[in-house]
Amino acid sequence: MSTSHWAWGPEPDPDELREMGRLTAAYTGIGDPAAWEEPVPFERVRLAPSRVPVPGELREFCSAEPYQRVTRTYGQAYRDLIRAYRGDFGNAPDLVARPRDEGEVERVLAWASAEGVAVVPRGGGTSVVGGVEARFDGPAVCLDLGRMRRVLEVDEVSRAALVEAGASGPEINGRLPGELRLRFFPQSYEFSTLGGWIATRAGGHYATLHTHIDDLVEAVRAITPAGVWESRRLPGSGAGPSPDRWLLGSEGALGVITRAWVRVQERPAFKVSVPVRFLSWEAAVAAVRDLAQSGLHPSNCRLLDAREAALASGGDGRHAVLIVGFESADHPVDAWSARALEITGGHGGEAGEAGGSPGGARQDREWKGTFTRMPYLRNAYPGLGLIAETFETAVTWDRFPALHEAVMGTFGERIAVSCRLAFAYPDGPAPYYTVLAPAIRGEEVAQWDDLKRRVSEVLLRHGATITHHHAVGRDHRPFYDRQRPEPFALALRAAKQALDPAGVLNPGVLV
Amino acid sequence: MSTSHWAWGPEPDPDELREMGRLTAAYTGIGDPAAWEEPVPFERVRLAPSRVPVPGELREFCSAEPYQRVTRTYGQAYRDLIRAYRGDFGNAPDLVARPRDEGEVERVLAWASAEGVAVVPRGGGTSVVGGVEARFDGPAVCLDLGRMRRVLEVDEVSRAALVEAGASGPEINGRLPGELRLRFFPQSYEFSTLGGWIATRAGGHYATLHTHIDDLVEAVRAITPAGVWESRRLPGSGAGPSPDRWLLGSEGALGVITRAWVRVQERPAFKVSVPVRFLSWEAAVAAVRDLAQSGLHPSNCRLLDAREAALASGGDGRHAVLIVGFESADHPVDAWSARALEITGGHGGEAGEAGGSPGGARQDREWKGTFTRMPYLRNAYPGLGLIAETFETAVTWDRFPALHEAVMGTFGERIAVSCRLAFAYPDGPAPYYTVLAPAIRGEEVAQWDDLKRRVSEVLLRHGATITHHHAVGRDHRPFYDRQRPEPFALALRAAKQALDPAGVLNPGVLV
Repeated sequence: MSTSHWAWGPEPDPDELREMGRLTAAYTGIGDPAAWEEPVPFERVRLAPSRVPVPGELREFCSAEPYQRVTRTYGQAYRDLIRAYRGDFGNAPDLVARPRDEGEVERVLAWASAEGVAVVPRGGGTSVVGGVEARFDGPAVCLDLGRMRRVLEVDEVSRAALVEAGASGPEINGRLPGELRLRFFPQSYEFSTLGGWIATRAGGHYATLHTHIDDLVEAVRAITPAGVWESRRLPGSGAGPSPDRWLLGSEGALGVITRAWVRVQERPAFKVSVPVRFLSWEAAVAAVRDLAQSGLHPSNCRLLDAREAALASGGDGRHAVLIVGFESADHPVDAWSARALEITGGHGGEAGEAGGSPGGARQDREWKGTFTRMPYLRNAYPGLGLIAETFETAVTWDRFPALHEAVMGTFGERIAVSCRLAFAYPDGPAPYYTVLAPAIRGEEVAQWDDLKRRVSEVLLRHGATITHHHAVGRDHRPFYDRQRPEPFALALRAAKQALDPAGVLNPGVLV
Repeated sequence: MSTSHWAWGPEPDPDELREMGRLTAAYTGIGDPAAWEEPVPFERVRLAPSRVPVPGELREFCSAEPYQRVTRTYGQAYRDLIRAYRGDFGNAPDLVARPRDEGEVERVLAWASAEGVAVVPRGGGTSVVGGVEARFDGPAVCLDLGRMRRVLEVDEVSRAALVEAGASGPEINGRLPGELRLRFFPQSYEFSTLGGWIATRAGGHYATLHTHIDDLVEAVRAITPAGVWESRRLPGSGAGPSPDRWLLGSEGALGVITRAWVRVQERPAFKVSVPVRFLSWEAAVAAVRDLAQSGLHPSNCRLLDAREAALASGGDGRHAVLIVGFESADHPVDAWSARALEITGGHGGEAGEAGGSPGGARQDREWKGTFTRMPYLRNAYPGLGLIAETFETAVTWDRFPALHEAVMGTFGERIAVSCRLAFAYPDGPAPYYTVLAPAIRGEEVAQWDDLKRRVSEVLLRHGATITHHHAVGRDHRPFYDRQRPEPFALALRAAKQALDPAGVLNPGVLV
């Protein structure tokens, strides 16, 4: 089915969407199903004519066709969703280029550099920070990597695979041989792509140890206006600053990532997952800290506060729920799990049934189902008049209590804030907050911008990062500029100038 | 005791040194104790007069005194050792600045930038790649961080410590409270410093997982001519390319690292270490690969080939020996160790006694003792007429057999080459080779350069890295230039130009 011009996935059925809205309102107590608003259909969207004719040398893979342009205008932030829902495509790219190989990527960059047309690289288009929106003056071409999606080579001895940047999660894992898998499951797994993950330092499903795609990358290849940037396949190296770490998080501003060698693993044969309930949030947080500092490296260590637990896994609304899981393709993980439950028990956690037995397995499955279904649920928000912002950060343990208190106290009673600890490091957690508020119809973008500004100020004031795994994009940019070291910004600007002298690569992102 | 002008540590006793030479010759069959050559004493070294008068504004902490200059001329490569032994200090820095705080570091950089004097930052001076030698035209000041060695702050909740760059391994661990330790033990531990480790991406003692200092760094602060580069303390972040990863491996070319927050841990209460013997090298390598891909994360997983095992731990000269160890401050590691021995047994490995019982403990202790004593043993090489090169690399598992065969076959019969796998990653090992050859007296530097060139060509040809944890310095530079992506080199040059417009920071290193 073809992609909707506004929704996550294909165009939703109108009746199902309304029904989802009713359920959401019942669950959250926010939004008004009686005042349901319909999306502006594709035929009625507002789209300016393309300012750039399709260049002859790119015409085989380049288009100015409205559907192409509209479906490449936005990412998936609520800020994007509401504008698309209302039919506002003012920042649509003038052209969409869909290269089939690196040669065609090079041709786009050469043409764009010569003509001064901005290039916005795009993978799955799931950015939630305005990273793929041509939110600047002047013409833009969207460089969609979606046709470069092959698994080119697999080294089963070293367990690594060479994958093209435009391959999505299911495509990568569907094309790896035997039991080999890329164990990386962000919430956007269905649509987001390897190139996008690398460009944004995306976070996967591992709660500890290999939290970001960074940890699974062996080598990267990117096309820059100054030439091909290809690092050597190496398991480790100490030869100067890591070239890969310069591209990881570069958000399309330094080059277009076209392929990468990634570390793959056998699919786990041993899994244990246990839900642990806590009446005290503080005790649950202390348990997560102990787990993160234990060296047990749980694959799952997600703590849902009482509100999230109630929504996500049928919790009772009073207990926080910690899901502790271990997985291995090599060995049973019972010793690991047993020690983890000793730790959580020491903090007053009540362990439920382990995965494999009915309660735990169901709870775990429900949580996972909810996790990957979440983006679809958001489709009902604009019609319902519910405004949503999810933001994530990371902070050291010593600063977390004050940060958490400040975040939870930032909003008034009509705004629901919930928290989960999605990732845990020895030196601090990565909390993920969900903010749900009643929308003022027509004012949603300004409302959202205000929410964003207020939470971002709290993050910076408490020594946290503006993002743990959602990238900077355009929405986080002012706060990122205050967070990063100024000499680093100088160096980054100089590096960009050397690689992209015409300044056409994703303008406004990072530098 | 004061540092020798040529040896590792204080000036060795001449009789003990000769005795060490006799033992080394007996063990290795290389070198001639009868033709023993004495070191040139400090009083007779060749040192040009300083070309730069001590500037008035730096005189409180800056000196042109010969002992200061001589003891800051070299690192600890064999190439350095032999020149120092012969009294050749032609590349001595003209001045030695020993700032007591960041303000004094800034004053050195401001003065040097204005006067066009090169600045060579120095920690413990244990570089084995010419990283701290003023091997260029024009005057140089050595910026010795040795007076900035405090532990400034400890966050026991997050388990992190703020440490000044000039602190050595024992100084850091001696100053951390209670059971907290920085678990990072390079062979140079006694003298090398935190700042040096970060600047060179040094490797510690963990064989898997946290192999480099990179993995233990939470935040870095550096003084650049363009200002203070200080990253935020964060357990994890996805906000753009990591600023810390730009400084890690920057080798003094982008700025002077003055302090860092590092992740510390409790001292392990549970340890198991088991020696496992293999008659077949290939089987031992396969066992290491399986261990590295098992997710068990052994803290020690060092494989010594038969020659290394014989020298280092009394092996029989026929068996390769793999030391497999686990450590934890939180939990017994028996389940981990038992599964590891199942894996090695599956490859035909015969497990010896585990640490705690006499055999294994002795073997493990002997290995560790040898490990930290090794640099002292090298003091006997110049007198004996033995030339030594140790080099390390990393390569993917699929390429390792061909690389190993090529390295072992590069030299003739009179040259002894041995190998250990020092670190193991899921996608490849980091082998460490020792080459011992009879010296042609007076020709050692040219001989060494030829050895280096030959092994480096083999590394590059087989897709390996020019260094896994010894940095690039000046000795690896031509090979590094061929290894790194050219657009990355462009970007690095531009970044350096932005941060160090006068080009005074460690010229010739990296760019």
